[in-house]
Amino acid sequence: MVLEDFALRIGHRFNDPELLRRALTHRSHGAANNERLEFLGDSVVNCAVALELYRRFPQLTEGELSRLRANLVNQPSLAAVAQRFAFGDQLSLGEGEVRSGGAQRPSILADSVEAVVGAVFLDAGFDAACRTVRVLLGEAIDTIDPRTSGKDPKTSLQEHLQARKIALPQYAVVSTRGEAHEQVFQVECVIPQLGIRTLGEGSSRRTAEQEAARQAYELANRD
Amino acid sequence: MVLEDFALRIGHRFNDPELLRRALTHRSHGAANNERLEFLGDSVVNCAVALELYRRFPQLTEGELSRLRANLVNQPSLAAVAQRFAFGDQLSLGEGEVRSGGAQRPSILADSVEAVVGAVFLDAGFDAACRTVRVLLGEAIDTIDPRTSGKDPKTSLQEHLQARKIALPQYAVVSTRGEAHEQVFQVECVIPQLGIRTLGEGSSRRTAEQEAARQAYELANRD
Repeated sequence: MVLEDFALRIGHRFNDPELLRRALTHRSHGAANNERLEFLGDSVVNCAVALELYRRFPQLTEGELSRLRANLVNQPSLAAVAQRFAFGDQLSLGEGEVRSGGAQRPSILADSVEAVVGAVFLDAGFDAACRTVRVLLGEAIDTIDPRTSGKDPKTSLQEHLQARKIALPQYAVVSTRGEAHEQVFQVECVIPQLGIRTLGEGSSRRTAEQEAARQAYELANRD
Repeated sequence: MVLEDFALRIGHRFNDPELLRRALTHRSHGAANNERLEFLGDSVVNCAVALELYRRFPQLTEGELSRLRANLVNQPSLAAVAQRFAFGDQLSLGEGEVRSGGAQRPSILADSVEAVVGAVFLDAGFDAACRTVRVLLGEAIDTIDPRTSGKDPKTSLQEHLQARKIALPQYAVVSTRGEAHEQVFQVECVIPQLGIRTLGEGSSRRTAEQEAARQAYELANRD
């Protein structure tokens, strides 16, 4: 696919096609690469998705919106977007990266998505960048389920168990280690009726509980 | 100051003044509060500052731009902006927060700056929000020095003292308060040779040290 067709596929006709070319140039290829555009694009993607979620889900709290966005904007999800739109075919990489399969590496792919959004932003402004974000992430945004992905794991687990009339999980701190300002907590989550026992670690009791709950929720959903 | 004058001071005439009122309403005041606007505004501030830095510093790398932005957009700096523009006088707080001095609390002030930018964004779009960000943060952006502010305060302070052949600062935790998951650390930074003693607060020992170092660095530069 020529670059111009690729541009149309992501929903933007560039006034300055050089911007797009740079957005698709990895640092291994040379000094005129996409790293600064990625810095810019990262913030544009986050802002565009924040706006989209803010408007779509007027009932969700700030914390729920943050979690939804974190589920949409992360390296695996952006790399998947890049795969779907065949970013890899358009990337300029250094020889070493070409040989080692850089065009399929999730970090390179995800960064290029952000850089391309940054390029659209510079080329035509925020609204144009939002349109491209909707083209790229629209499917992911359309299929996101705020009932599960906006909730923290403990809440999801609790609701899942209540719906199945199963007794709620028990959490217990099984160990702590490290000095006061960098403690690591280990918390166990037990659901006797399902024979589930998981162990979460975190820098606070709360994050350790959430991690244990996340694992237990996955197991409970396999039942 | 009436709300309309406050709006003009931050560089925006609201089509929907209700948005501004909500942006200045803390959750302690009721359900119609600024938390969702803060979620949105946080991303707008980051994006607007990213764009500003991208344009101003064409020679800086992505990592340097990220550090510059982290120095501009953080709780202490946003709280300082809120102080300068007297956000505290405009805040609607619950009675408990009013009594305990919530209108001066850095977290509440910083959040309200983000929420107000989010309100401008919804009211009039991205460019209007950028104008307000420039009004609020312009002075900080104008005076940022990419040679030093790319570094964290402890590093800057250390290098400054080494260059002057002065003994390095001593840091000590002088108090902690609050429950485990929302502790506040107070750290003292002492430079005996310069007679400097500062006190930083933060949600971790590290952030408290950095805040104490930041103050000490300012004082050391006045010598």
